[in-house]
Amino acid sequence: MTVNPYDVDLDRNPANHQPLTPLSFLDRARKVFPDRLAYVHGDIARTYREFHERCCRFASALSKRGIGRGDTVAVLASNVPAMLEAHYAVAMVGAVLNAINIRLDAATVAFIIDHGEAKLLITDREFSETVHAALGRVADRPAVIDFDDPVYDGPGDLIGEKEYEAFLEEGTPDFAWSWPDDEWDAVALNYTSGTTGNPKGVVLHHRGAYLNAIGNMMVWAMPPHPVYLWTLPMFHCNGWCFPWTVAALAGTQVCLRRVEANGIYDAIARRKVTHFCGAPIVLTMLINAPKALRDSFDHQVEVMTAASPPPATVLAAMQRAGFRVTHTYGLTECYGPAVACAWHEEWDDLPIEEQAALKSRQGVRYPVLEDLMVADPETMEPLPHDGETIGEVFMRGNVVMKGYLKNPSATEAAFKGGWFHTGDLGVTYPDGYIQLKDRSKDIIISGGENISTIEVEGVLYQHPAVLEAAVVARPDDTWGETPCAFVELKADADPVTPEELIAFCRERTARFKVPKTVVFGPLPKTSTGKIQKFVLRDRAKAM
Amino acid sequence: MTVNPYDVDLDRNPANHQPLTPLSFLDRARKVFPDRLAYVHGDIARTYREFHERCCRFASALSKRGIGRGDTVAVLASNVPAMLEAHYAVAMVGAVLNAINIRLDAATVAFIIDHGEAKLLITDREFSETVHAALGRVADRPAVIDFDDPVYDGPGDLIGEKEYEAFLEEGTPDFAWSWPDDEWDAVALNYTSGTTGNPKGVVLHHRGAYLNAIGNMMVWAMPPHPVYLWTLPMFHCNGWCFPWTVAALAGTQVCLRRVEANGIYDAIARRKVTHFCGAPIVLTMLINAPKALRDSFDHQVEVMTAASPPPATVLAAMQRAGFRVTHTYGLTECYGPAVACAWHEEWDDLPIEEQAALKSRQGVRYPVLEDLMVADPETMEPLPHDGETIGEVFMRGNVVMKGYLKNPSATEAAFKGGWFHTGDLGVTYPDGYIQLKDRSKDIIISGGENISTIEVEGVLYQHPAVLEAAVVARPDDTWGETPCAFVELKADADPVTPEELIAFCRERTARFKVPKTVVFGPLPKTSTGKIQKFVLRDRAKAM
Repeated sequence: MTVNPYDVDLDRNPANHQPLTPLSFLDRARKVFPDRLAYVHGDIARTYREFHERCCRFASALSKRGIGRGDTVAVLASNVPAMLEAHYAVAMVGAVLNAINIRLDAATVAFIIDHGEAKLLITDREFSETVHAALGRVADRPAVIDFDDPVYDGPGDLIGEKEYEAFLEEGTPDFAWSWPDDEWDAVALNYTSGTTGNPKGVVLHHRGAYLNAIGNMMVWAMPPHPVYLWTLPMFHCNGWCFPWTVAALAGTQVCLRRVEANGIYDAIARRKVTHFCGAPIVLTMLINAPKALRDSFDHQVEVMTAASPPPATVLAAMQRAGFRVTHTYGLTECYGPAVACAWHEEWDDLPIEEQAALKSRQGVRYPVLEDLMVADPETMEPLPHDGETIGEVFMRGNVVMKGYLKNPSATEAAFKGGWFHTGDLGVTYPDGYIQLKDRSKDIIISGGENISTIEVEGVLYQHPAVLEAAVVARPDDTWGETPCAFVELKADADPVTPEELIAFCRERTARFKVPKTVVFGPLPKTSTGKIQKFVLRDRAKAM
Repeated sequence: MTVNPYDVDLDRNPANHQPLTPLSFLDRARKVFPDRLAYVHGDIARTYREFHERCCRFASALSKRGIGRGDTVAVLASNVPAMLEAHYAVAMVGAVLNAINIRLDAATVAFIIDHGEAKLLITDREFSETVHAALGRVADRPAVIDFDDPVYDGPGDLIGEKEYEAFLEEGTPDFAWSWPDDEWDAVALNYTSGTTGNPKGVVLHHRGAYLNAIGNMMVWAMPPHPVYLWTLPMFHCNGWCFPWTVAALAGTQVCLRRVEANGIYDAIARRKVTHFCGAPIVLTMLINAPKALRDSFDHQVEVMTAASPPPATVLAAMQRAGFRVTHTYGLTECYGPAVACAWHEEWDDLPIEEQAALKSRQGVRYPVLEDLMVADPETMEPLPHDGETIGEVFMRGNVVMKGYLKNPSATEAAFKGGWFHTGDLGVTYPDGYIQLKDRSKDIIISGGENISTIEVEGVLYQHPAVLEAAVVARPDDTWGETPCAFVELKADADPVTPEELIAFCRERTARFKVPKTVVFGPLPKTSTGKIQKFVLRDRAKAM
């Protein structure tokens, strides 16, 4: 057998092969644009030179404490400098960043600290009561560092051995950090907010973080030096990789402790924010803000949204308000967004409602996700591109997680058949764009017919009085299940009755999809603004 | 010893790891933007759907002929559709594209066909005389397919078994092409135009091609759907990866058989070209074109240049003419450009001559090149960032070649010490930007002092009568070597004598750097517009 010449004497070596890592972005930004602003936070403004130096101190301090490759460093904080710096410093010693959701209860935080085996925890003073309670429950207590944010003057004790700035002083600014040995090494650990059972620890790697950071840039056509506002929690899937994307473009990150309309509009006007991300709840908040706020800026702002499909009415209102919305879709398991509704220029000429309808579809694969399909979960065969046949959404590619930490059975189930099983249900349109119809567990089966709760919610959102709507299954002796709608009305809306809303739906959708029950009141939400349908399902069941 | 949990049960599998390959770009473009124009050539305009179908036919035809992984497919053609399609179709069967320089002599073409072991050769009718002669010399004759360009009506016989379109008919448009097994697999083989000895075959891989395609996009801040004009030969280092970059952005590639001012300006005006690349010779041609041509467009055109540093005067003239020039630097060994003069916005406020001086520096690493330094070639220690100390330029990263085909000693020498040795000499400025001073072999050593020939050429270019200048070493009994200048004057310039030019230089540079000899006349060039200094050195020696 002859040997192929391309397989001989052409091996990897340090000159021609280096692990892909998002650390490369910071390294380049601080060398090429050392004097550009890396981030601002209140009155604090730091250049890439300073940002890099602080990350080096941080990494050096970790190293001096014996923290290195494969160790976990947890951070429980809002969108503050310590969180941003952790996205680089932890990786600089080969350790793994575990960003913890600030709204979790003590028991869950304790579970995460134990399961993730955190060696060190940085905690934001605002949340110290919960963290203190969590630390009282853990089996193995990590070193604890406080982050006492100068921008925050509310309650909360210092509970750690020292404050973050003093911790940085332990390190040296000229620390010689090293690249990962392997791009497959873990870079982050993110616990999914499981609605049943314990949360699962999603392990991400350097290769995927590097690639999805670039994917964001490509999908959003981001220019050099964007000004990126932190409306999306960084503890939510590493802020969809944007801590890394922005550095790759030597842009400025605008920290933000609290997501509320005043702060967002102020940052947009004063910092000339060009880009931000947020769940539809953030969009709803912005378009329902007072007119004076909405009129406070005059440049175009790019907004990326995901988490759940924004109703067409919200998209249209955002567009009128000067925000250009890019709709994406993803999960913690795929580094945040990995699917995007890629825009066609010719759609610009359509009526705005039609544009919004097109944009409400999740779309097509990120350039860095290698494959995407809606398929039959039994046979794994792709389903017709007819916009109607519902199947499960499957992904494969370099921006899919390594797996779940210490959970081989969940990992195996997630990757069965060589594809990542998203658990989301959707359809594919003739143009290849996918649209989510529901989570597997959310879909309603009424009289043998599948009902997409998202579709019914879209109908409810068309009613001018509706601020937010969520539809879930309610058990029914005759039909098996029927749609039950929970609706929060706008504060200033004209009065409307459940019967009127039902009649409204009946004019706009098939009879079997019309909610049989409508309940008014505020909706329960997760920390990331997702409506907690499992809570509503329990309520519907109890009615 | 305890096992790190991140190292357990978190392995690669098809769901979370796929080889990086530029084929991914075409796959996405044809699925998401099937109706956008992929390329135009004369009256031919083909969409991404058509482009992909033709590539599938091409790949299928190769497959039917038994050509697959690790086989070489050679193409000798100008910038025509067959060449563009070969950049995808060949990789679709795991084969390796060997694009051959159309200006080589028969003996060299024969050497390349034999050394690269091409199984099939596609040849442009215009160059069939040379190819016919080459085929008469080869040890192992490949299958030969003619490309008979409808846009070309000059001389040249058909010498192959069939024409390209008939060859495509052998294949099927629904061919199920496959991704490479490994991103380290070879994707292209490019022979360097060695000035001594046989050319060396640079082997590039899928990973690097994918990454440098993205690097181009990042460095140039390319928007979606660019209109890219093929002024740069695709046989030159795979057109710096732009056949792949443009598909990643679902842009349109404008083919061009011949690089001359009329055709370029016509394409810019008629096709609304947004981007093109070219050696400084192309820039010189454009700014010296008649005013009517120069005034024929009114949009901004982005131009990437490399190969040799453009003189400040050329850069300034381009800027005035409506072209924004991005200066890059690279070699065949690093997929084309891998270093770029990243621009700082604040430089926009400087006088245009200062801007041009800053821009004449090669700059900083591409985001996808992991490291770059000017170092002492003996010790491999980085040299001071003082803008003066000359050392060799070294690179390391994912856009460095696999190595030279069947040439382990050259590969080993190129990668000695874990860095790629470029053979170029340069300095680093205090801001970290590098500037080339010469090729190792071009530098002049006069009385023990190093003289950068590029620097002396820069002085000559400041003279209004000088169209092109090249400085080489001339042996000298007293000094060892002295600078000898070969100069081509502008057709319409006022008369100037060698003595006047020497006096002009004396006013502007150190005495030992002033050419002792000035010779007027046209300059010998390679196919890519590089001045052949080895020819001039021979002339200088013989004087």
